[in-house]
Order: sequence, then structure tokens, then C-alpha cells
Amino acid sequence: MEFSCDIHGVPEGTIVFPHEPLIRVQGPLYQCQLIETMLLNTINFETLIATKAARICQAAQGEPVLEFGLRRAQGIDGSLSASRAAYIGGCAATSNVLAGKLFDIPVKGTHAHSWIMCFESELVAFEEYAQSMPNNCVFLVDTYDTLEGVKKAIEVGKHMRHCGHEMGGIRLDSGDLAYLSIEARKLLDAAGFPKAVIVASNDLDEHLIESLKAQGATISVWGVGTKLSTAYDQPALGGVYKLSAIREGKHDPWNYKVKLSEQMEKISTPGILQVRRVYINNQAHADIIYSEECPPDDVFDLVDIFDSTRRKHIEYDDIDDSIDLLLPIFEKGKCTFGSQCARYVRDQVAVGLTKFHSGIKRFANPHEYPVGLEKGLHEKKQKLIMELRGH
Amino acid sequence: MEFSCDIHGVPEGTIVFPHEPLIRVQGPLYQCQLIETMLLNTINFETLIATKAARICQAAQGEPVLEFGLRRAQGIDGSLSASRAAYIGGCAATSNVLAGKLFDIPVKGTHAHSWIMCFESELVAFEEYAQSMPNNCVFLVDTYDTLEGVKKAIEVGKHMRHCGHEMGGIRLDSGDLAYLSIEARKLLDAAGFPKAVIVASNDLDEHLIESLKAQGATISVWGVGTKLSTAYDQPALGGVYKLSAIREGKHDPWNYKVKLSEQMEKISTPGILQVRRVYINNQAHADIIYSEECPPDDVFDLVDIFDSTRRKHIEYDDIDDSIDLLLPIFEKGKCTFGSQCARYVRDQVAVGLTKFHSGIKRFANPHEYPVGLEKGLHEKKQKLIMELRGH
Repeated sequence: MEFSCDIHGVPEGTIVFPHEPLIRVQGPLYQCQLIETMLLNTINFETLIATKAARICQAAQGEPVLEFGLRRAQGIDGSLSASRAAYIGGCAATSNVLAGKLFDIPVKGTHAHSWIMCFESELVAFEEYAQSMPNNCVFLVDTYDTLEGVKKAIEVGKHMRHCGHEMGGIRLDSGDLAYLSIEARKLLDAAGFPKAVIVASNDLDEHLIESLKAQGATISVWGVGTKLSTAYDQPALGGVYKLSAIREGKHDPWNYKVKLSEQMEKISTPGILQVRRVYINNQAHADIIYSEECPPDDVFDLVDIFDSTRRKHIEYDDIDDSIDLLLPIFEKGKCTFGSQCARYVRDQVAVGLTKFHSGIKRFANPHEYPVGLEKGLHEKKQKLIMELRGH
Repeated sequence: MEFSCDIHGVPEGTIVFPHEPLIRVQGPLYQCQLIETMLLNTINFETLIATKAARICQAAQGEPVLEFGLRRAQGIDGSLSASRAAYIGGCAATSNVLAGKLFDIPVKGTHAHSWIMCFESELVAFEEYAQSMPNNCVFLVDTYDTLEGVKKAIEVGKHMRHCGHEMGGIRLDSGDLAYLSIEARKLLDAAGFPKAVIVASNDLDEHLIESLKAQGATISVWGVGTKLSTAYDQPALGGVYKLSAIREGKHDPWNYKVKLSEQMEKISTPGILQVRRVYINNQAHADIIYSEECPPDDVFDLVDIFDSTRRKHIEYDDIDDSIDLLLPIFEKGKCTFGSQCARYVRDQVAVGLTKFHSGIKRFANPHEYPVGLEKGLHEKKQKLIMELRGH
């Protein structure tokens, strides 16, 4: 007996679209069942964090976002997954040293408040830090009084310059980040440190970053931890693993299967599912979910999953390009895809995101990207549902 | 050089209280710094999930809560921590088989929707399941039509009884759980299955359970996954690790340390911190944070952390009992506490929770449990802050 299952999800973000197959698993019944939970655990969490990271990086408008989430993640492998997914979603670096080592992700961070508190004064603490890290020196200035801290950082920065080194910048971790960054920038510029960066952290997310930018904050590097590594405002991606077709033997025909529900969004889609993304004018135009037994050819007719009266007709001649999103990864028990480094996947995500219109990616009331069933598949699904409901 | 640090947090729940030390670490500087992130990662997450579980179990009013969160956790060790913490917080069992094995937690679950969809009909699927699991048979009835599913479960349940077995019950996983459970209960009772349990799941949390109970739902076992294992509505406990005292050598006096902030809740507490819980009339009355160098004796004067004009005076003679909450776990690099099984810790939590007035544990506008600094420590903290601020 052979199964075809898919994982599909409904996240808030901008990478995965409503009820779109994320992965397809085909194989003997027991094998497909055994890997269900592992796949859901991995795909749900990493997709969620990569999506959240992409949103945060979008708000940062190209300025580096550093992932600082280790202390709020779930255990070591939770944190490793989070760091890797955050990097893939667009973060520039992580404070998770092990993730940096394992996945070749740049590692960045500053000293802790306790570094300052170990010395008799903030000034001495900065001097000692500058001696230890002369070429990678970002001072955390808010242990006692932020703007006084900036002045001490400048004092040490001047001494460093005298010795042939350059202070990297300062980090703000509390208080009114808009006001403090503007004042700190003035102090740094006036003292001859226009290139010193201002790193900020403190429960940041895409909405706070957007707001700080709107207020004219002069922050140029964003440290984001808790809200990123837990995807704080939507901490789970509701991906599920559903049987979509079954057959007795490899040469038998597939029986399409559907799970009903009184909640429309919980009704599954039958078939040997694949997703085709079509591009018009070099922009992603729509995603079409179809069954591989009956691929769309020269005309694309989409039916909205939740409202079957919403339809979209796409002429083949209008399309610049189209790609099938699901690619074979394991075949006959062997990985055929080739391992890809996090950096490469990150670059692919970045290119992929540029293909979406900004209206789809905005945070407030985004335009809904069209995702629908290929018309023939929609009709098969309707027929199956009606049969099961005895109509 | 020796450090004393504490982790303290501000969660939403009812187990940990505002800014209370959760753990104290004392030792050489480098050692204390090396374990910081591991401790924060572990303590933050497990405390959060145990708290969430306690809230959910409270809503279930003694009915069993099953933890079903594996597919939404962060990786394998995230899920193991979540399952263990959920059990400690009061859950009756987990669907995480590995957690069950490692921590001796009861394992419970039902079959998947795909079990039903593999067979030619729901009835045949139930019959096959009953044959496989004659003594532990809970039927998931919502694959096609929930109440029709209940009728088929009853049909198979009658056949099981004829063969000397008893159906365990049914599980609802979608739709209007209040209505469906009431209707299912009627069908089960009328058919002679008054003892068959009704398990329900579907994005449940303490608020939904409370609401379902208020609506008269006849659910007696609660399956809770996503919202528990991610602590959905507050997915991170903001515990931090702060240096609170330092000394040169073991025989030198401690220098108390405080981290300032423009955000009052981010100012740390200095000292060799300990927390004493006092009981009056067999109920937890207040928690007093003090420095071990100067323990409270026969009078307890508490000062609120956030509002120093709010004070509480407790006469020694009024107190039934008092305990110090922080106990030594590692001493000189060796674990001296003894490993405790999850079951034992769970029992201790359950007893501990009964000591709190229900007003403190309610979900809407709970009474704020008094947590404060011992007056002498408050004064030392104020003096340090004033000095650092140059007043």
C-alpha cells in the first residue's frame, strides 16, 4: 500500500501561502506515518522562523539584523534550528556560536552588562574591553546611564584611534531607542566617529523597527532575539500532514482522499500534489496547486480554496516563466538533492522575495497573493466531498 | 574573583512571581559566564511551559489534560523539555513517546485521521482499530461527519462489548466542541456507554477550556498541543541573568552590584539573593527577596519592587511557616540535590499550587501576590542606585 501525503500550512507571513503544500511524501504506509511528526516539527518551526526573519529584515530595509535569540529558544536544537532559519530568512549573523560553527553563519555580539559591572567603573571596563577586542569593539553603553556611557565610549574610542585601532560602535539595549540613538549619533559625529555604528536591541520586532525608522532613529544594526526566535506574535505555524491519495500497489491507480471538517479550512486537498508558481512581468503572479496526474498545460484556471466563486484565468502566452515549487529531495531512500549550505539557501530566499510585489509583503492589510486549485483538481475535490457527504 | 548572579523573570502565569530570583549561581567569573545562556535557555522555557500547563490544568478542573505539542515544538530537545515541563505543570500524559520513555511520563494518544482514510469506510477503519487496540480504544470521529462518526463508534463499541472488551471513548478534533460533545454524550449514554470518555482537541488553551465548561460541554479529557508547547499567548519568559555581587577572593567582603536602566523593571537587585515564602493560615502570604548576608529575623518588612511606597509588615508570631525557595543543587562542581523524577516534582508543584488563594490564580484580573524586597535590602539597593546616578 502506498501513500501520498502533504504538509500544508497557514502562516501569517509572506513566504508560505495559505494552505499550500510545503512538502510531499510518497511511500509505503508505515514509512510515511513514522516520519510524520519529525517532518511537522522541523518544517513548521523552521518555516515560521525564516518567515519572521524575512519580515524583520524587510523592516530593517537592508540594514543588518543580528539574531540574538538563544536564551529564549527551546533547548539546544531548538536554538540551532532557529538560528539557521533566521539566517536563511535574511539575518546577517547570530550570537549563537555553535550555530555559527555548524552552519557557517557569521557570529556577532557585544559584551554583557556584567562585563561593565565587574570593573570599578564603566570607563575602566571599556578600556579593558578595547584592549581585549581592539578590532571588533562595540560598547554596550546602557549599564548605568546611556548617554554618559556613550561619552565614555568616545573617550576610549579616541584612545584606541591614537593606538591605531578604530572603535566599531555602541549598543543600546534599553530606554527610548529613538531618542537615545539620535542623541548618541550627535555625540559620536561631533567627536569624529561618523562611522561608528549604533546597534540596538530590546524586544524588537518588525513593527518596532518600522516605528523606530519612522521616528528617525539612527540605528544601523538591529539585534533581535526573543520576538524572532519564538515568532512571538504567532509562535506556531499550523502545518498539518494529511493523506491525499492511496493505492494498493505501484501499478494500481491512485484513490484520491479527502478529510472533511465542519471548518472549511480544515478540509484537505486530494491528489498527488504539486504547486506551480507563474511569473508575469518578472513578478510572481499566482500559485496553482494541481495533481501531478493532471498537470495544467496551456491555460491556467485557478479556483480559490476558501471561496470557489473567486477564480482566475491565466493565458499561457502571458506567462514569462513558471516553476514547480516541490522538488525531489529523497528518492528510494537516498538523498538526491544534495546538501545546500545555509548561505546558498539564504541567497535563494532573498532572490525569491524580490519576485513578490511590495503590496503582498507589507505588514498592514497585505494584498492577498492568489493561491488556488487547478480547476480540474477543484472539481475532483468537490465531487469527493459531495460523495462523502452523501449528496 | 567570584560572582553571584541570579536569573529572575516576569511571566504572566501563577507559579513564578514578578522579578523573583529563580536561581542563584555563585562561582568564579568565567564559570558563571560560561553557563549563562544554557541556564537561561533551560530555565526560561521550562518554567514558562510548566506555568502554562498549570493554568490549562486549572481550567480543566481536575480532568486529565494530555500534552499533544510535539509537532509544534522546536526540535527534539525542545519537544522533550516541553513534554516534561507540561507534565510537571500538571498534565496527565503526553503523546511524545520518547519523552514518555525518558521521563517516565504516561503516553496517550488516539489514531490519526489518515487511519480512517486508509480504509474503504470509517466503519471498517474503526473495526480494524478495535481489533488492534481492544483495551485502549478511543475513536477519532471527525474525519467525515462527527455525529455520524459517533454512531459508527457506538456500533463498533457494541461489537467490542459482545467480545468482552469495552470501548474507551471518542475524540473530537474540530467543529463546535460544545455542541458536538453534548450531542455525542447523548448518543453514547442512550446506547449504553455512559463511561465512554469524550476527548477533545483543536487549538485549546485555558481560556477555551473555561469557555467550553461554561457552555456545558461534556468533554472529560482535554488534548492540548500548540497553545501549550509554545505558550502561545506569551511565548517567552523574559528571564535574565544579572550580576548581583562580586568579591576579589573567598574571604573578601562582597561588593553589591546593580545594573541601572531608564526602564524601572530592568534595574537589577544587588546581593546574595534568596527568597523566603511565608505562610499564614496555611496559605502563601508573601515572598520576601533578601540577601543571605542579612536574613530577615523576627519581623518581615517588605517593600514592593516597582512602587517603594507599597509596603507590607508581617509579625513573626502571625506566621505559620516559612521556607527559603532557593536550594543548593550543585556545590563545588558536584550535584548535591539528587535527581528527582518528573512525577515527584509534579506532585510538589501540585501541592505548592494549593497553597495559593484562588484569587491569585484566576485568569482575569488576578490578585497580585505580594513579592517584595526585605527592607534592609531595599535600602541598600536605593543607596547604590543613588550613588551610581551621582545623587
